[in-house]
Amino acid sequence: MDRTELSSLGEFGLIKHLTEHITINQKSTVLGAGDDAAVISETGEQSLVTADMLMEGVHFDLAYVPLKHLGYKAAVVNFSDIYAMNGRPEQMVVSLGLSNRFSLEAVEELYAGILLAAEVYGVDLVGGDTVSSKAGLAISITVIGKAPEEKVVYRKGAKNKDLVVVSGDLGAAYLGLQILEREKAVFESTPGVQPDLEGYDYILQRQLKPEARKDVVELLSQLGVQPTAMMDISDGLASDMKHICDQSNLGVHLYEDKLPIDPTVVSAAEDFRLDPTMCALNGGEDYELLFTIAQSDYDKIKGNPHLTVIGHMEEGSAPLLIARDGSAHEIQAQGWDAFKTESEEES
Amino acid sequence: MDRTELSSLGEFGLIKHLTEHITINQKSTVLGAGDDAAVISETGEQSLVTADMLMEGVHFDLAYVPLKHLGYKAAVVNFSDIYAMNGRPEQMVVSLGLSNRFSLEAVEELYAGILLAAEVYGVDLVGGDTVSSKAGLAISITVIGKAPEEKVVYRKGAKNKDLVVVSGDLGAAYLGLQILEREKAVFESTPGVQPDLEGYDYILQRQLKPEARKDVVELLSQLGVQPTAMMDISDGLASDMKHICDQSNLGVHLYEDKLPIDPTVVSAAEDFRLDPTMCALNGGEDYELLFTIAQSDYDKIKGNPHLTVIGHMEEGSAPLLIARDGSAHEIQAQGWDAFKTESEEES
Repeated sequence: MDRTELSSLGEFGLIKHLTEHITINQKSTVLGAGDDAAVISETGEQSLVTADMLMEGVHFDLAYVPLKHLGYKAAVVNFSDIYAMNGRPEQMVVSLGLSNRFSLEAVEELYAGILLAAEVYGVDLVGGDTVSSKAGLAISITVIGKAPEEKVVYRKGAKNKDLVVVSGDLGAAYLGLQILEREKAVFESTPGVQPDLEGYDYILQRQLKPEARKDVVELLSQLGVQPTAMMDISDGLASDMKHICDQSNLGVHLYEDKLPIDPTVVSAAEDFRLDPTMCALNGGEDYELLFTIAQSDYDKIKGNPHLTVIGHMEEGSAPLLIARDGSAHEIQAQGWDAFKTESEEES
Repeated sequence: MDRTELSSLGEFGLIKHLTEHITINQKSTVLGAGDDAAVISETGEQSLVTADMLMEGVHFDLAYVPLKHLGYKAAVVNFSDIYAMNGRPEQMVVSLGLSNRFSLEAVEELYAGILLAAEVYGVDLVGGDTVSSKAGLAISITVIGKAPEEKVVYRKGAKNKDLVVVSGDLGAAYLGLQILEREKAVFESTPGVQPDLEGYDYILQRQLKPEARKDVVELLSQLGVQPTAMMDISDGLASDMKHICDQSNLGVHLYEDKLPIDPTVVSAAEDFRLDPTMCALNGGEDYELLFTIAQSDYDKIKGNPHLTVIGHMEEGSAPLLIARDGSAHEIQAQGWDAFKTESEEES
């Protein structure tokens, strides 16, 4: 495979090379990359702004994450935050810190993933920064979206007795990570052995190439359902549910037997001697939407295969999980925590 | 000095600690940090978006840059890009990658600098990301500004015979860096020796605590001058002038004897056996505004101590510097280039 050193292009050359084939699709994008700032026209709506930073060795491991997948995921997780406000992502700015370990071809792969996500979700890449890094790859993405003022959904809006709904299913992304880490360990101890990934297609895809639930936001609009509170599940259902509870000043009752878990997740969890419920509660990175709706909206979503009612908001209660045997357990947020994880690894 | 480990707070704890004293001043900020995305109301103007990423060891050296100054500068250089579009910065999102080398107290210093800049320029910090890094400090900032559509100034708008104007003076920030690097080398060879920074106040401040020319944008508005093209000088006058030439499809004649250079820059350049003109042309990081105006606007800016006419746009010409002896030299962009610098350092 060809290897072109980044230093042979220089900073301006690299930026020009990466951005010259970018297409602009949003009507609101007046000017993309190439000036001091991008220019976005008014639409009469509110703007939504979200940012995420991903650091090599903390958020991803290039030993098993292909660069194109990494770029795709880095973009999609930001789009997911905009959908979680009931908005549409329209523009993104991408800043990359690149060590000289990366060739131009490697950066093109990463960029191809970012641009594929932009194309799939109809988002314009309108600028950013591309700089040198002394150590590893850093990816920082900011996404700007739009929504009519009356459509924006906050975490704080849940009302007592509102139904708690989740899209898709939970726990698969976490198990995908377990499989990738297991196969990496096998490979490191026995180089040359082929990874055993058979039968894990769905859960690997959920980890490596997650999608944001644009379709669910559009579906809710079509059904005439305005969520009262919403967020995306990035840290895990338990951790994220607690954000809605805290900000809405309410407790919740979630029912273990209602949690949507794919059959392949149940069997993979058994392989790893993990409890599927714990994977669904604390796994994170599913990028499903977690939202609350008025009980009067129940008939509009009933029976929809993309949506599952998993509980209801409950004033004066702690956040509780009602287990299959009827026992109640306070939900602990054991979501992914970069700083604590790092300190544990060192101890 | 106290040292509190970041791991003792965890990711959510750190973000909460850093963001709990943020005040919101812009009328357009509907919601700042704390939800999936910040929410910004419409103003009937265009939005301007710019981003910069700073990596430790490439863009700054913590051996001689105080963290508070670093935070201030990281914010200000982004505000400068918005002013360079003739806009007003209103919101910013800040993403930090922090290794465990940094204590909570160190992060607070960095954040204090960012928040001071936000306060001085009236910009709201509305979100971002705070993550763990395996190596060094990464700072990624995105700033969103506003301007009425008819006020936005692009790089491409210069017309033949337009006057080229620069604010303030040039070359000081580059010499400030030379002094800091010299004193660092002295300190490393003879630990304990105090740095010799006397008489260098102005040029050190230009390097360590640059300001964005908000005042110049406001002045031009008061004077009724609408620049035809504008950008800020971050890579150096030569490199940045060429951007305006390229995008406006014009050449330029700049006059060496017109370049605004502070007397302390001339004497510091002599100390380092550097040509002050070269410092002004290629030094970079001055964050002055470089813009073009119609000749008919000359009377409006004539004699203003903040503004210097340094040349004019010239159709069919190369970008030229006319030296004091009348000889013409093609302007070479030798601006700061992270990737080339890195490869040169290694060779």
